[in-house]
Amino acid sequence: MKSRDYKAALAPMREELAAMARWAQATGQRIVVLFEGRDTAGKGGAIRAVSEKLNPRQCHIAALAKPTEAEQSQWYFQRYVRHLPSAGEIVLFDRSWYNRAGVEKVMGYADAPQVARFLEQAPTFEKMLVDDGILLFKYWLGTDQAQQEERLRERLDDPLKRWKLSPVDLAARGKYDAYTEAREAMLAATHTEWAPWTLVDFNDQKRGRLTLLRDLLDRLPDTRVAPPQIDFPPLGREPKVERYTVIEPIESFPSD
Amino acid sequence: MKSRDYKAALAPMREELAAMARWAQATGQRIVVLFEGRDTAGKGGAIRAVSEKLNPRQCHIAALAKPTEAEQSQWYFQRYVRHLPSAGEIVLFDRSWYNRAGVEKVMGYADAPQVARFLEQAPTFEKMLVDDGILLFKYWLGTDQAQQEERLRERLDDPLKRWKLSPVDLAARGKYDAYTEAREAMLAATHTEWAPWTLVDFNDQKRGRLTLLRDLLDRLPDTRVAPPQIDFPPLGREPKVERYTVIEPIESFPSD
Amino acid sequence: MKSRDYKAALAPMREELAAMARWAQATGQRIVVLFEGRDTAGKGGAIRAVSEKLNPRQCHIAALAKPTEAEQSQWYFQRYVRHLPSAGEIVLFDRSWYNRAGVEKVMGYADAPQVARFLEQAPTFEKMLVDDGILLFKYWLGTDQAQQEERLRERLDDPLKRWKLSPVDLAARGKYDAYTEAREAMLAATHTEWAPWTLVDFNDQKRGRLTLLRDLLDRLPDTRVAPPQIDFPPLGREPKVERYTVIEPIESFPSD
Amino acid sequence: MKSRDYKAALAPMREELAAMARWAQATGQRIVVLFEGRDTAGKGGAIRAVSEKLNPRQCHIAALAKPTEAEQSQWYFQRYVRHLPSAGEIVLFDRSWYNRAGVEKVMGYADAPQVARFLEQAPTFEKMLVDDGILLFKYWLGTDQAQQEERLRERLDDPLKRWKLSPVDLAARGKYDAYTEAREAMLAATHTEWAPWTLVDFNDQKRGRLTLLRDLLDRLPDTRVAPPQIDFPPLGREPKVERYTVIEPIESFPSD
Repeated sequence: MKSRDYKAALAPMREELAAMARWAQATGQRIVVLFEGRDTAGKGGAIRAVSEKLNPRQCHIAALAKPTEAEQSQWYFQRYVRHLPSAGEIVLFDRSWYNRAGVEKVMGYADAPQVARFLEQAPTFEKMLVDDGILLFKYWLGTDQAQQEERLRERLDDPLKRWKLSPVDLAARGKYDAYTEAREAMLAATHTEWAPWTLVDFNDQKRGRLTLLRDLLDRLPDTRVAPPQIDFPPLGREPKVERYTVIEPIESFPSD
Repeated sequence: MKSRDYKAALAPMREELAAMARWAQATGQRIVVLFEGRDTAGKGGAIRAVSEKLNPRQCHIAALAKPTEAEQSQWYFQRYVRHLPSAGEIVLFDRSWYNRAGVEKVMGYADAPQVARFLEQAPTFEKMLVDDGILLFKYWLGTDQAQQEERLRERLDDPLKRWKLSPVDLAARGKYDAYTEAREAMLAATHTEWAPWTLVDFNDQKRGRLTLLRDLLDRLPDTRVAPPQIDFPPLGREPKVERYTVIEPIESFPSD
Repeated sequence: MKSRDYKAALAPMREELAAMARWAQATGQRIVVLFEGRDTAGKGGAIRAVSEKLNPRQCHIAALAKPTEAEQSQWYFQRYVRHLPSAGEIVLFDRSWYNRAGVEKVMGYADAPQVARFLEQAPTFEKMLVDDGILLFKYWLGTDQAQQEERLRERLDDPLKRWKLSPVDLAARGKYDAYTEAREAMLAATHTEWAPWTLVDFNDQKRGRLTLLRDLLDRLPDTRVAPPQIDFPPLGREPKVERYTVIEPIESFPSD
Repeated sequence: MKSRDYKAALAPMREELAAMARWAQATGQRIVVLFEGRDTAGKGGAIRAVSEKLNPRQCHIAALAKPTEAEQSQWYFQRYVRHLPSAGEIVLFDRSWYNRAGVEKVMGYADAPQVARFLEQAPTFEKMLVDDGILLFKYWLGTDQAQQEERLRERLDDPLKRWKLSPVDLAARGKYDAYTEAREAMLAATHTEWAPWTLVDFNDQKRGRLTLLRDLLDRLPDTRVAPPQIDFPPLGREPKVERYTVIEPIESFPSD
């Protein structure tokens, strides 16, 4: 998709996102969106598309670090639970508890009973959140291996993307089918009435982002909450200018 | 500044930022950057310029919510301390402990002895962090009231920016001079050898961002850390394509 | 029960508790014990009987403060989850998530749908913990109102116990039956195969503590783990005495 | 000291402690007490003497676990800061930030520059807390090696105390003088006007506890705060008795 077309389609959705955030704030909604998917599919970009125009004090991104040894010994969901939203908050999970059914399973970080227990507990856990009134959305971003290869190569070559390339990513190249299989098992166990998965094709990342955003916005109630009326009278005097007495600003970057 | 010129100047700085982040990771550096300044100056945009291409698991944005009643009764720095970085981390404070010397002072949320104590403790607190090896940078973003008025008006009119407009912002319109005075007192008390302030003119926000970024990069050691050597052999077989059996991806956003 | 008899019966149980703690440490068990019950029944004393000879770095007491406004808006179990044990830890809950089915229900802090949802979720929540391997014990301490009245009076008169007397306690005097009813509803909904309740008569608190302790110890596996072999050779020289040069100890309390 | 004399002397102090806690609550005081000292001196018992009759929701014991790898890389005081009290709270530190000047120095867990930086920062850190209004008390409990040897032997032989015996304790037997030296360096650097140390002889632990308690109580203002007036009318009807319908209490421990 061309950048211009992407931006044109994105602009009105951004306004809808802003309206949704205002509604969540005004009514105390709690919103959780999970971003899962194939490596390189474009989770980071999709999260940015949702969050970048929202208030960072309202919309949090939960990108958990590797668990500590103590955390590894706890109830599996424990370290995720502390990131769940308070009233009015939106939490975007950059990867989530589904790690256990994906990378941990395929790479052998979790054993078969752990994975089985996770697949059994996840729907129950999510039902509790949903019954508690949390609005939960689960997105899985898919991409063919041809695109994946291209993006891995780009990560290798582009210094700005180099940090995204981990040894695990490379090990995953030979495990495309194992990841597919893991995903199917995950969907079979956790695609529930109360917390369904939504699969989005991210072979074209811009289109993928629009698809995801459109779907998310369509599934949230279209309740308009007018922004608070604010009185903005003229200033009524000459605006002031900055005056510094202790230290001066540094020289500005050359304008040409 | 024109968007095209901005992007052209930004691109090489982004590569330097990526290199800096790699260096921080490799050597276990801890980096703290405070973003303070006049309302509407452009803190959010400046933070985004630093963070948007970095690993969110390495570069954290600390945008603290209003303190709870318990937090209000604690040692003033307590709730900030928990956001200080571990080895390899970069923390960008979207507003910081300097709230007390700015908005809290001007709006009367803190009383005179609290402000005085803060101005006395801040340099000491910061000296402890710096002596501990934390790299601390303090930026204050300035803007004339004419620009501020224009941006407030824009926040009022643009639904995407409406959330940025709070009653406090409007109350601040009549207190431009009081904020100036508070800032000067803050600079006089906390512009120290070990933790100096850097003032940046944000009357032109794009230029301001470049100025800040250039300064930050110039002050960090220019130590190159080569990315880990990664072997990327050809895949050696036909790349796989996504195959779904449980549920299918939703229809993609129309491409035209 | 007489103090002497109590101590005689308690002594061997303390050794069993110590052995149990060693076993938990050595095998990475996670143990959770909930202490619920009628006001003044003796939860605090029972908790002390379990904990007082154990390592405070292993055995934690979770006595949660009143929820903040943000916590009140979260998933009900969220603030409890963060106190769940890591490997080798024992957590004693001084009141627990069952607040919602007791005091919050009777005093009207939670509404009927909240209580209903709690009674539905609690067994599910606990099943997840138990299936994860956590050893969960739920004790409810009962006492007749005659004893309760006596103990309330004692709290009023004894300066050491005065802090235990809250206005809620007094309001509860007239609600003995409502509490009974709430407890029965709670038992009916949450006395499950995987997380059964144990009711203990605390009309005699000393006997109650022994009853509870005996039951807890009987239900934990009786696996002996020998303490690590430690070599303790003679010191082989004259023991040293304290010598102070900077400041001296303060004068000791008179010995007679 | 004989047990009977100890109890007789302790009883009135307990009432003073209760009054002090009420005063702290009513006036929003924040109290921090550090318990440091020679291994086996009796820190745990002293902490229990202070805390055991106080409200566990007001009086917290901070007994920190071994730092995680991330914590080890943070500003040294960071993990302690989060345990500092809110208004009305009393925090008893079972070992404290002074670990760095004691066990970490002697056992080589911290290097010389780390110890030197700690000794420089500790007074500054404490001054900030004290200037913020926190009431800070620092106790160091001393004991001659003869007593220490006896108590180590007891820990080895008494199953209830066995958990207190760590390999570090035994390694410390040969380092009595190194610990003395470390303590003297610590006192020289951190015995300040605003946060003085108090040394207490714990060769007799009961006397030591009374000495410490007496000193603590004498240094806290003797402000009486009357407990809130509470109206306790007669119940006015027959007290109820427990009636169980779902399950019955388990059989009580035999009374003879």
